[in-house]
This record gives sequence, structure tokens and C-alpha cells, in this order.
Amino acid sequence: MNSKIVLYVLGGLLRFLGMLMIIPLAVAYYYGESLTPFLIAILITCLVGFLLLTYKSEGEWLLKEGFAIVGFGWLAAAVFGAIPFAMDGITPLNALFESMSAFTTTGSTILVDIESHSRSILFWRCMMQWLGGMGIIVLFIAILPKLGVAGRQMFRAEAPGPTEDKLKPRIRETAKILWMVYLVISIVEVLALLLAGLSFYDAITHTFTTMACGGFSPYGQSVAAFESPLVEAIITFFMFVAGANFALHYRALYVNKKYLFKDDEFRFYTATVLAASALLTILLWRDMGTDLFTSFRYAIFQVVSIITTTGYATVDFNLWSDSAKMILLTVMFIGGCAGSTGGGIKVVRILLLLRHGRRELFKVMHPRAIKAIKFNGKSVPDEVVNSIVSFVVIYLLIYLSSTVILSVLGLDLISSITASIATLGNIGPGFNVVGPMGTFASIPPLGKLILIANMWIGRLEVYTVIVLFTPEFWNR
Amino acid sequence: MNSKIVLYVLGGLLRFLGMLMIIPLAVAYYYGESLTPFLIAILITCLVGFLLLTYKSEGEWLLKEGFAIVGFGWLAAAVFGAIPFAMDGITPLNALFESMSAFTTTGSTILVDIESHSRSILFWRCMMQWLGGMGIIVLFIAILPKLGVAGRQMFRAEAPGPTEDKLKPRIRETAKILWMVYLVISIVEVLALLLAGLSFYDAITHTFTTMACGGFSPYGQSVAAFESPLVEAIITFFMFVAGANFALHYRALYVNKKYLFKDDEFRFYTATVLAASALLTILLWRDMGTDLFTSFRYAIFQVVSIITTTGYATVDFNLWSDSAKMILLTVMFIGGCAGSTGGGIKVVRILLLLRHGRRELFKVMHPRAIKAIKFNGKSVPDEVVNSIVSFVVIYLLIYLSSTVILSVLGLDLISSITASIATLGNIGPGFNVVGPMGTFASIPPLGKLILIANMWIGRLEVYTVIVLFTPEFWNR
Repeated sequence: MNSKIVLYVLGGLLRFLGMLMIIPLAVAYYYGESLTPFLIAILITCLVGFLLLTYKSEGEWLLKEGFAIVGFGWLAAAVFGAIPFAMDGITPLNALFESMSAFTTTGSTILVDIESHSRSILFWRCMMQWLGGMGIIVLFIAILPKLGVAGRQMFRAEAPGPTEDKLKPRIRETAKILWMVYLVISIVEVLALLLAGLSFYDAITHTFTTMACGGFSPYGQSVAAFESPLVEAIITFFMFVAGANFALHYRALYVNKKYLFKDDEFRFYTATVLAASALLTILLWRDMGTDLFTSFRYAIFQVVSIITTTGYATVDFNLWSDSAKMILLTVMFIGGCAGSTGGGIKVVRILLLLRHGRRELFKVMHPRAIKAIKFNGKSVPDEVVNSIVSFVVIYLLIYLSSTVILSVLGLDLISSITASIATLGNIGPGFNVVGPMGTFASIPPLGKLILIANMWIGRLEVYTVIVLFTPEFWNR
Repeated sequence: MNSKIVLYVLGGLLRFLGMLMIIPLAVAYYYGESLTPFLIAILITCLVGFLLLTYKSEGEWLLKEGFAIVGFGWLAAAVFGAIPFAMDGITPLNALFESMSAFTTTGSTILVDIESHSRSILFWRCMMQWLGGMGIIVLFIAILPKLGVAGRQMFRAEAPGPTEDKLKPRIRETAKILWMVYLVISIVEVLALLLAGLSFYDAITHTFTTMACGGFSPYGQSVAAFESPLVEAIITFFMFVAGANFALHYRALYVNKKYLFKDDEFRFYTATVLAASALLTILLWRDMGTDLFTSFRYAIFQVVSIITTTGYATVDFNLWSDSAKMILLTVMFIGGCAGSTGGGIKVVRILLLLRHGRRELFKVMHPRAIKAIKFNGKSVPDEVVNSIVSFVVIYLLIYLSSTVILSVLGLDLISSITASIATLGNIGPGFNVVGPMGTFASIPPLGKLILIANMWIGRLEVYTVIVLFTPEFWNR
């Protein structure tokens, strides 16, 4: 591997990150808050960035360099993005946790009293999520090829499943388009939230974390703080949009709306959301004593929030009945659509695995029949199915290991089970200790490191990070 | 489908079952207990059996008939085997639950005060498990071909994964050999338990349920009732043996012992048992305050009991720390080896899925490399891997549905999660309400029906039962 190139690109990334920190610095200035955290962070980040940029190497970009840049790039962003938190009195490990949670658009928090932190720090926390979301749908197919990395391979590492459906022939064009879609929808959400009566600060921070399927909020009560069904409805709509494929949104917006409902993944995603919301509505109405409308209001918000891996809450769902929680636990293992900002296993993978199962059942009755797995009317190549299977196997293995380690460290069963999926799936909150109104602060240091790794691995579609830990990667 | 043939074979099965009930009748006579339950059961079972045997049809045996015989055969055995329980004052649904739990070698119970039932009833309960275990390793490859059913197809439906390794060219021969191995090892266990000081009744009932990986015991305290480390060691050994491939045992006993440790599945099984036991020992020692030896004694017994899907207990593991329970929960999702009497997903499937995952990770680094998945030095055909993947997908889907339904019916999260796998994996006990010293009695009727279906589906390797519910199966 040509590590000089990797360091050079990371340098560019850090310089960019350092410059972006001018925005929260401006927010701090506007609210008359301390400028020191951001000044120091900008100084360090840009300094390291410029130092790394001196490695102007000219070698070739191959697969390994690509993986290293993506994997370590995300890690570096999390480390340097944590500086303002650390300057704000948060311990280094907690700061890294919060920063990784932000850049991976997870939304798990170690903050105990969120409102006690300055508005600029909370703004930065939300802005990092938006940047992370932008990174997810854009970085791999735009910035990296621009720097010379083989774009297709990166896209392969990042885009989950069989969505390598060419939107425009040139990959940089595609990236720009997706970025535009992301930005345009973000602006529409800000406007909608402003019209619903939110302050500019609230509208922009919540748009940041909605569009990224992130889930951070400057309020400890999350979206419940607004006590407004209208705001909830708006956020539900935009979470749902952010959890769907952005390439599909482009087509729906600029070509033909019909594309959306012709897409197998989007249909399955919609059907799952509706079915889970309906069931949850009934359960809340039956078990929690809320009237049908309120039950529906809570149910659809929470289902969309969890399946898109956003992680907002309008109610402390940790206090719900176990049957209601079971619905949320189930959708935690699905996640958003491919090409969205959502995390998790992804809808398309679940859908293709189910079709795989159905095909084999057919084969039991017709041993000699040959039947392909279809997606959007086309046969899915075996290698794509194999890749999905392995992804899920490795995903569940990491999930299991993390759950076992957390429980060995003393977390109760439900907290271990949900904290692992909440971080690996980039969701945010779980149940019990790590519930929506809880915090990850009390988890022991080793546990926090595991969860940081979960967020990193889960966000980069598992393989991208895992290969960095194989001896093969480091062999010449 | 030629339903006359199916009914004819079911008739033969019931006549055989009715005649076998003479054994518990003799036990009842010996202990001076009421003969009525068994007399009535024998009468009804044989009568229905003889009635069905009048359907002497001569049509051809095809795939559908085979599936119907296997699926409905197990169901019929459970229904008629339940008659003695129903005669003993147990409600019909509970009796069916208990009987299905017995014939599928599950070991979940609805009995509240086990010792309050007569010795003959408890004997029958254990004997049914041994018959179920015999059925699992023999019925499909011996009785059915004898009756003319295409043996290979049945073997395919039953034998999990890629174990279709020809032991002897003719399938009836193979079946006889396996039955001998099962019987011989059973006799050795009876002798060992007698030498360890158990009564003949205790030795034989516990051998029945050890060898079948069943887990029923005539005592509410299960194996803890004996308070004997020696008995526990003997039972641990025989559970471990019963959870391994009987074809492998034949080879090890009659050909060469080396075969055992050359087998990838057996090695992985052994390694898993050792690793889980070691970890559990440390956790019990740390969390429960038991000394190292006692911790090890509890740990290895419980790990072997759960991974082999036997379900005995020497301690109320429901009272263990959550970290210790997490180890048991993990092994619940593995199960025994292919060709054993154990249930669950099966070791070989887990092993091949892990190898599948490893291969894909390799492919990420070497996109053009071609690498086969190996098992015992041979390449595993793609169709076997596909079949395993679909099995696991359908298995987990059924698991999930069952868990959701149980929690909707009001069971707490942990009970729902563990009751589903305990029945689908044919293990027996779970945690909380359905813990090892608990009972399934309090579960609502619909929940019991779901769990009965789980046991049936799980025992017959999923496909065999599921196809019976496809419209295609009933089409002409």
C-alpha cells in the first residue's frame, strides 16, 4: 500500500474539516459563547491537515489505498471532530464516542444533561451528522474519484447491495446530482419547520439530523420537546424520505414520480413502515391506554425513526409494553434503503434474502426447476446474493460478539442486545439503560470502545473497515 | 397427491405406536398405577391405525406423498401420543403440547408439579422422546424407504446440510446401522448410570431423554435432583455424544477413531463447547460467587445441555447473571450436529455460513479470485450453500414471527425471545417464565399453538412442514 497517498488525502480531508468548523465558530460568536473550543479545534485540524498535505506522492491508487482512505478518513474525522467536545470539558473517550456517533449519523449520546452544553457545541454535533450523511451518499462516488481513486470499486464497497444502477454515466456527475438532491430536500425541510413555528436554530439543527438519519437533537427530550403534531408529521415525512434511495428521489423529482413506486425496495420499505406502524398503533392503544390518534401519532413517528435509523423520540418508548418494544426491536434489524443516509442491514438485503428463501422453498417442490431471484424485474446475479449473505453473516457475528462483550462487562441483557444493534445499525437509542431518554455515559470504557467500533464498522458497510484488520491488507 | 397411500402409511405408524404403548402399560402395572390411560390410548390408536390400513392403495410414491407422511406422521404421533396425558387429567391442548414436545425431543413442559403425575405417565413422556430421537436418525432413511418412499429425497428433506455422505451404499443398511449405534450407546448409558447409583427407572428414563437430546426428566428439579457430580459427568458425556453425528460415531466405533477428529463439524462443535464452557465458568465464578470447580461443573453441563438442545438443568440458570445467560442464549442459536438427535440450526450450517463470510471478505481484497468453500477438504457445491442460506432465512423468519406473536400475547421480551428459540430449536427451557424450573403452562392457548408449531417445524428441518402449507402442495 502506498501510505503516502493515503496520508495526503487524509490531509485534504482534515483541512476541509477544519475549515468547516468556522461555521460552528460563527454560531458561537453569534450567541456570545466561548470561541476557544472551535479556535483550538480549527488550529489543530488544519495544522495536521497541512502537515499531511506535504506528502505529495504520485504513485498509483489501488484498492487498498481506497479502503484505507475511506476507513481511516472516517476515523480521522471522528477524532478531530471530537476536539471541540474535549475542549468543552467532556472526557476524551466520551468526546470520541459522541463525535463518532455524529459522523456515522448514529445518534447515540454520552451527554447526560444535553441542554447544559453551549448552543454552538450542540450545533456542531448536529452539523457533523449532516456532513456524515452527505459523506455517505456522496464522498465515495465524488470526492474519492476526483482524487483519482477507482470510483467503481469504492462505490462497490459503499453502496449496499445491487443498486449499482447507473444513474448517469460519469460518477462525478452522479455525485453532484445526489448532493444537490440532498441539499434541496434539506432546504425544503428547513422551510417547512420554520413555517411550523420552529426557530431558525431548531429548524436547521433538526434538518441536519433528519436528513442524515442521525437523530441528535439539541434537546434532551428530542422531538418531544416541541409538543407539536405538525412538527412531528414534517419530521416523519423527511425521515422517511432520507431513509429511501437518493438516486430514486432524483429520478422521481426530475424524471418521473412513477419511478418511486415501481422500485421493489421502496415498495417493501413503505409496506414495512405501514404494517409496523399499524401493528404498533394497536398495541399502544391496547397496552398503554392512549387513544387511537395519539397511538398512531407515536407509532408512525417511532417506526419511521427507528427503521430509517434516525433515532429521534417523541415519547420515552422505553416505558412502552414489551410487545410494543418488540416491534421496534424488529425494525432495528432492517434499517434504511440502499443509497439512503440510513444505516442497518438495509431493506434491499432483507428483501433479497426473503426472495432467496422463497426460491429454495419452491425448489423443494420442484427439484429440477431453475428460478432466478428477481429485483425490479431483473435477475440478480449469484455473486450479488453471495455478497449479501456474507454481509449479513459478518454483520450478525459482529453484533453477537459485541452483545456478548457488553453483557460480560455487566450490562443487562436487554441493554446489551439493543445497545449493540443501536450502534452497529447507526440507530442511536436502544432500550433500558440506553433508552431514548437515557445515555451511553455509564457504559464502561471498554464497552464504549466496542460501541465506537460498531458505529464505524456499521456505517462503512462492514467490509470497508474489516479488511483493514486482516493481515492480508498490510502484506506487501 | 395420492392421499390414500399417505393414510395407509400413517395407519401403519399408528398401529406401531399403539403397540409401543404396551411398554408404559407394563410400567403402570408394575408400579400398581391406573392402567386406564394406556388401555384407552392403545385402543384408540390401534383402532384408527387399523382403519387407516384398509386404504391399501397401489399408486406411485412421489415427493408430495413423502412430505405428507413425514409431516403428518409426526403430527399424528403427537396427537395420539397425547391420549395418555389427556386421560391423566391434563387439558387436551396441554396434552398435545407435552406430546409434541416429547416426540420432537424438545423438552418444554406444561406440567407444573411433575412429581404429582404417575410414574408410568412420566415414563411414557421420556420414552416418547427416545422414540422421537430414533425417528429422527432412522425413520426417514429406513422405515419410509421400506414402505417404498423415495429414500434419497426424504433423506434430503431430513438430513441437515451436506452430510449426505454415503456410509453404506444401501440406505436401509445405513439406517439399521445407525439404529444399532443409537441402541448400543443407550445401553452403555443405562449401565453407566446404574453404576453411578441410579435406580433402573431413573437410569432408563434419563437415558431415553439424554440420547434423544430431549431433556424431559421425571423430576421437577431435572438432573439437579440427583445431586451427584458423577451422574452429571456421565450425562454430560452422553449428551455430547448424542449431539454429534451418529454416522460419525459408527465410523469411530467400528472403523477408526480418527474419523471423529478429522471431521470439521465435530471439531467446531467441540471447540465451541469448550470455549463457551470456559467463558461461562469464569463468568459464574466472577458473578455468582461459586468456586471454580463448581462453576466449571455447572458451566459445562449447561453448555452441553443447551447446545445439544437437550435442555436438562443442574441449577436454575434463570437466576444466573445476564452475562452468563447471554452465553446460553448464544449457543441456543447453534444447536447440535447434522445427523445427531439434536435440533437447532445445526453446527455444520453455522460453520459453512462463517466460511461463506470469510470467503467474501477474501474476495473484497481479491475481486477476481475464485475460492470454493471447503468442508472436510472437499468443495461444497453452491446449491448446498444456497439451501443452507435459505434454511437460516426461513428459520429466522419463523423465529421472529413467533417472538412477535408471543410478545403481542403479553409475554415479556426475554420470555418471548427465549420461548421461541427453545421450541423452534427443540431445546426445551428458556429464561424468565419459561426458565428451567418454570413451565409453559401459563402461556395463552394461541401462544401454545404457535409453540407446538415451532417444535414441529423445527424438528422436521423447516421445509418438510412448510411445504405442506403452500398452495402448490395441494394443487393437482
